[in-house]
Amino acid sequence: MKFSVTVTLKKDVLDPQGTVVQNTLVDMGMNNLKSIRQGKHFEIEVNENNQANAVKKVDEMCKKLLVNSIIEDYKINKI
Amino acid sequence: MKFSVTVTLKKDVLDPQGTVVQNTLVDMGMNNLKSIRQGKHFEIEVNENNQANAVKKVDEMCKKLLVNSIIEDYKINKI
Repeated sequence: MKFSVTVTLKKDVLDPQGTVVQNTLVDMGMNNLKSIRQGKHFEIEVNENNQANAVKKVDEMCKKLLVNSIIEDYKINKI
Repeated sequence: MKFSVTVTLKKDVLDPQGTVVQNTLVDMGMNNLKSIRQGKHFEIEVNENNQANAVKKVDEMCKKLLVNSIIEDYKINKI
C-alpha cells in the first residue's frame, strides 16, 4: 500500500529556502509570482493490507522521524 | 491562484537520501516498510486570474529553475 506524505513548514515559520527561490524567480522576470514556500515530499510503500493499520504505520514514521512537529505540518494521502 | 508542485526523482534514478531514511526507519523497528523515496514540494501563489495562464507560468518556473528535467519529474496541482 502506497502513500504520499507532504511536509510543509507551519505558516508562521520563516522559510529562508523558499525566499531564496522566490527572489531568484523574481530576478528571472517572473513578476506575477506572489509567494513560494518549499516543503518535503515522501513516497512511502508499506507491506500492510489493512488501510487503517497502514496509515497508522506511516503516521508513526512521520511522528518519529520525518516531521518536526514543532515547526512542520504534514498530510498523508493514499496513492 | 495557488498551486502545489511535487518534484520527484525519476524511478530509475538512485535516491541516496531516501535510502538513508529507509534504513533509519528499519533500524527503528518499522519492519513493514517496503520503500521510501524523497522529493520536493512547493506551494506557489501567482497573481493571475486566468487558470490556463497561471498554470503556464508555474510550468515555466518549474522548467527554468525548480526542476532538473534530466533526473526529475514534476506534477502541478491547483489547491
